[in-house]
This record gives sequence, C-alpha cells and structure tokens, in this order.
Amino acid sequence: MMIRVSEMSVLMTNAQTAAWLKARDGFLILTHRRPDGDTVGCAGALAQGLRECGKTAYVLSNPEITPRFLRFVKDYIAPPGFEPEHILVVDTASEELFTKNCDMYLGAVSLCIDHHPSNTLYAEHTCLEGAYASCGEIIFEILLDLTGSISSRSAEQLYVSLSTDTGCFAFSNTTANTHRVAALLIEAGAPYRELNKQLFRTKTRSRIQVEGAIFSKLEFFFRGAVAISTITREMMESADAKEDDVDDIASIPGSVEGVRAGITIREMTSARDCKVSVRTTSLVDAHAICERFGGGGHSMAAGYTQNKTASEIKDSLLETLRDFFPEQ
Amino acid sequence: MMIRVSEMSVLMTNAQTAAWLKARDGFLILTHRRPDGDTVGCAGALAQGLRECGKTAYVLSNPEITPRFLRFVKDYIAPPGFEPEHILVVDTASEELFTKNCDMYLGAVSLCIDHHPSNTLYAEHTCLEGAYASCGEIIFEILLDLTGSISSRSAEQLYVSLSTDTGCFAFSNTTANTHRVAALLIEAGAPYRELNKQLFRTKTRSRIQVEGAIFSKLEFFFRGAVAISTITREMMESADAKEDDVDDIASIPGSVEGVRAGITIREMTSARDCKVSVRTTSLVDAHAICERFGGGGHSMAAGYTQNKTASEIKDSLLETLRDFFPEQ
Repeated sequence: MMIRVSEMSVLMTNAQTAAWLKARDGFLILTHRRPDGDTVGCAGALAQGLRECGKTAYVLSNPEITPRFLRFVKDYIAPPGFEPEHILVVDTASEELFTKNCDMYLGAVSLCIDHHPSNTLYAEHTCLEGAYASCGEIIFEILLDLTGSISSRSAEQLYVSLSTDTGCFAFSNTTANTHRVAALLIEAGAPYRELNKQLFRTKTRSRIQVEGAIFSKLEFFFRGAVAISTITREMMESADAKEDDVDDIASIPGSVEGVRAGITIREMTSARDCKVSVRTTSLVDAHAICERFGGGGHSMAAGYTQNKTASEIKDSLLETLRDFFPEQ
Repeated sequence: MMIRVSEMSVLMTNAQTAAWLKARDGFLILTHRRPDGDTVGCAGALAQGLRECGKTAYVLSNPEITPRFLRFVKDYIAPPGFEPEHILVVDTASEELFTKNCDMYLGAVSLCIDHHPSNTLYAEHTCLEGAYASCGEIIFEILLDLTGSISSRSAEQLYVSLSTDTGCFAFSNTTANTHRVAALLIEAGAPYRELNKQLFRTKTRSRIQVEGAIFSKLEFFFRGAVAISTITREMMESADAKEDDVDDIASIPGSVEGVRAGITIREMTSARDCKVSVRTTSLVDAHAICERFGGGGHSMAAGYTQNKTASEIKDSLLETLRDFFPEQ
C-alpha cells in the first residue's frame, strides 16, 4: 500500500492540493511532536472537511496532545486496525518531528501541508505557504476549494490554529491575511469568545504560582538589558505545575521593558540538569550566545542544556554575555 | 460661535458624518477622562484625516494622557488661543467623562462619534455604532468616506484604537468587523508589529513586581470560585508603580481557572481608603454584589469604595458572597 517517496517532492498549490484530495480517499493525518494548537487544529479541521466531502479521514493518535487541545481532534482519532491509503501530515517541517508511533510512516508520507519555510520536502507532495502565520490559513483555503464553505466545526478548529500560532494576533508572524481569515472563521461560526477566554485569558493556579515566583525572583544585569529567571524543581513541585502550566514561560524575562536578552534557566530531571532558553530582540543574537555552550537555534530564540547547577550556569552565562553587551 | 445644543441630538450614519465634516472646518477634538488607546487613537486619526482633506483640526490637550499613548496625538495638540468652530468628541458616552479643561464645552459639542450603547446623546449630532468593538472602527469608515483612503499615519492610530479596546483581539467585544478592519489597517501600513510588542508584549519592571506580589498573595475562597487580591500602598511604593503600571490589574484574579468572581481590593490615598473591583463570569452578578456596598457597574464588572481597611473589607465581602455562592 505504501509508496516509497522519491528524491523529489512535488510542490502543489492550495488549489492543486484540494483537487488532489478530492480525487483520493482513505486518509490518515499525522501531527507533530510537542503538538501545538496549529497542528492539532489543522488535523481536526482537515479530517472534518474531508468527511464533509464523504471521505474517510482519521487523525493518528498523538500521545503528546495535552488535555487543552485534545478535544479538537478526539472525534477523529483513528481506530485500531484502520488501514489508510494516504498519509497526510500537517504543520510539520521534517520527519524528525514525528512522534514515536509514526515510525512506520517514515518515508511514506503522501502529502505534507505546512507553513514552515524550513520544510525538508520529505513528503511525496508538499503544499507549502512559507509566508503564512499559521498552517491553518492554508487548510482554510484548501477546505474552501474542497467543500465550497467552512462549517462551524472546521471554523472552530481553524480559529484554534490561527490564534494559538499568533499569540492571539499579537506575535510578529501575524499578517493581514491572518486577520482576514479570522473574520471569515468568526462569520462561519467559530466560538471565538469562548476559545479566547480558554486559550488566552485563563491561567491555572499552578501557572499563577510559577509566574509569581518568576516575577518575584527575576534578576537584572547589564543595566537592565539582561533578565534572568531561574525555575527550580522546587518551584514546579510546590506549584504542582505540569508542562502545560509552563507553556511559553521562557518568554517572560524578555517581556520586561528594556530587556534585550531574556534568559530562563530551568532545572529539569535534577538540580544539575538544566535547560537554558535565550530570547532576544533583533539587536542580540540568541543563537550565537547558545552556540558558545554547544546549543543553538534561531537569531531571536535559542537554547542549550548543561549538567551544571543553575547558579554555575548563570555565572558562566554572565561572563559570556560581556562579549554581547560590551558597552554595559 | 458656540451653539447651545437642543434637547434632541441628530443621529447620523457614518457616511452622513463624513459629509457633515466635509462641509465644515475648524475642528477641536476632545477625548475622555482616564484616556485609553481608543479615545486617543481616534482623536489622532480623525485630526490626521481631516488635515489630509485640507481642514484645520486640533486635539484638545488632555492632562490625563499617559506617556504610553501621548505620542499618538502630540502632533495635533491645539495651540493656546485656537478658536474652534466645531467641537468634536470621540469615544465618550457622556459629558461626565469630560476632563476639567472641557468645562467651557459642556452643552456645546457639535458632533460626538462613539460606540458605547450607553451614550447619553449629549451632542448636537451623534454618530453611534453600538455594536462596534472600538470607536476606531467607526472613524475608519468615516475617514474612508472622507479621504478615499487611509494613510499609514491614520492606520497606526486606528490600529491602536482597535487593538487596545479589544485586548489585542482577545476580549469578547471583538467581532469579524474588527478583524476585517485590522487587516485593512495592516495593509495601509500600520506598524502593527512594533505596536503589538509595545502595547501587549512589554511590561514595565514595576508592573512585573506588582503582578508578582499579586500572584504570590492571591487568596481563594468558596472552593476556588472566588479569588481576592489585595494591592497595598506599600506594594505600589516598593515597586515604584504608577497608574500606567497597574492598568487593567483588576482582571488578574478573574483570569485564574475556575474563578467566577475575581476581586481586587486596592488601597488608594490611605490604608482606610480602598477601591474594590469585582470581575465575574456571566454566572455571577458583579453589579448586585457591589450594590450591597453602595457601588455598582455592569453585570460582569463593577466596583465600590469604602473607608475601611482591606482586611475589614475582605471580611464583609466574604460574608456577602455567601449569598452569591450558596452551594459552596
């Protein structure tokens, strides 16, 4: 049944992708590791839209989907024994981002729909819109082509995609297109008021407790240009905090006025196993900082891990940061 | 020069308002007390648009405009001695919301442009769109009629209006129209990325410190359905916090998962002069709670003041809240 993907991926437009889907049936949709609202919302919306066309479409269960997002795909999870004809992947730049239960689909993806410019073109066919803020905006166009309209269920799932990938339209990736699609999703019946309240205006008590501890213990260096926060295991435990509770917590130090490098040092499995996240403004190269410690990433968001205590890490970081803030 | 306003206000559509403005000249624009991004952004955009039509238009200085918003109107502030022919007011539901330097314009407003359904129709002419999330959406339509396009400067000011009045498109007042206008403002050149960063993704160090203290000391009652935060003068002083730093701080207790009534008790001029803010979900009547203490407001946001200590206020509030949370 599975066709080995050739060296080259066939690039398709959104309209071609809709036509491709219309001509086929028996779809299984894969989501990526550490699943966010975009991959989950896209998977749900695509499965829903395909079903509205009379197709058989399921989403592969992803053990990492948290309760927060599970409800948007749970109605489409593939039953045991489902034999797909075509493997679809949404919002996933490379096969390295597959979850463990996807091993059998490595090299066997028929179609990848994605908005990451870094997509490795691992699929037989690829539908890529690298300038879109969210993959949901692509699925929106495909569904419109495929079904002629957007159902309220798809609108809900796509609103989750758009809004979570743009931090509720506040991140720099937001575009006029994101807003225009959001308007159409609202008109199609997306329950955006409830979604905004749940996704952006509600914090768990654990989250509040961790944030309070971070805020109270934030340290500033280089005349306020650098802010460092240490998240200890003790802080996490006393707040009974899960991974969901500390989502995007690395962005907090960088949100303080005047800070050009916001750094989070988080104790992971032990006090000597720390994960360092560096978030910077365009004036400071986060990747270059982390590279000094064997890590890396993007120019404004990078990280590394070290088997040292938070205090040791802070000392070595501050030493290194002198090179990046020479004037201070 | 000033014409006393008659008993009845003439209601005008957005198109009629544009025509009315086109036929006149010599405008002074007023903003409301405790000025927010909507009133300031609208005043700036309207002055800018009128000037683009060759009109003389100024904004009356408002001593309450904070540094955060001043830059959006500072180029239009009326010079001493400017003699307006027409007084315009934006985003202001009643003359009670006028600042002190507006006394001479009481009963003398030619045109009020507003989106508050509670507008008292105090102006000679009123352009009211009660279903719009922001007054900026009305000004947008008027400027389009007036000038045929939106300049990048007006787009910036209007983006401030829309985004601040909707909490960056997250509040319940947001509509499809808000998103559609936002898309057009972005295309017209609004520097929305910088604005989002400044307005929604940056906190002052004072703000961080106050939030940290609030988070650490948040108290829960009635099985987590009620959260109470006390903001002491000492907390404000030790954080060197100004009013700008505690903008919308009353919404914090209500943002915790499961909370149906979020309450902030804030010491004002002394420890025995407290302002109480009550924010609720639709299940609890904030106005009814505050009415018991001589205050009031809306069903989901209300308040009152009392000459008692925060601790005394908390005790009496908890006593009263038993009536509102009988099952807990």
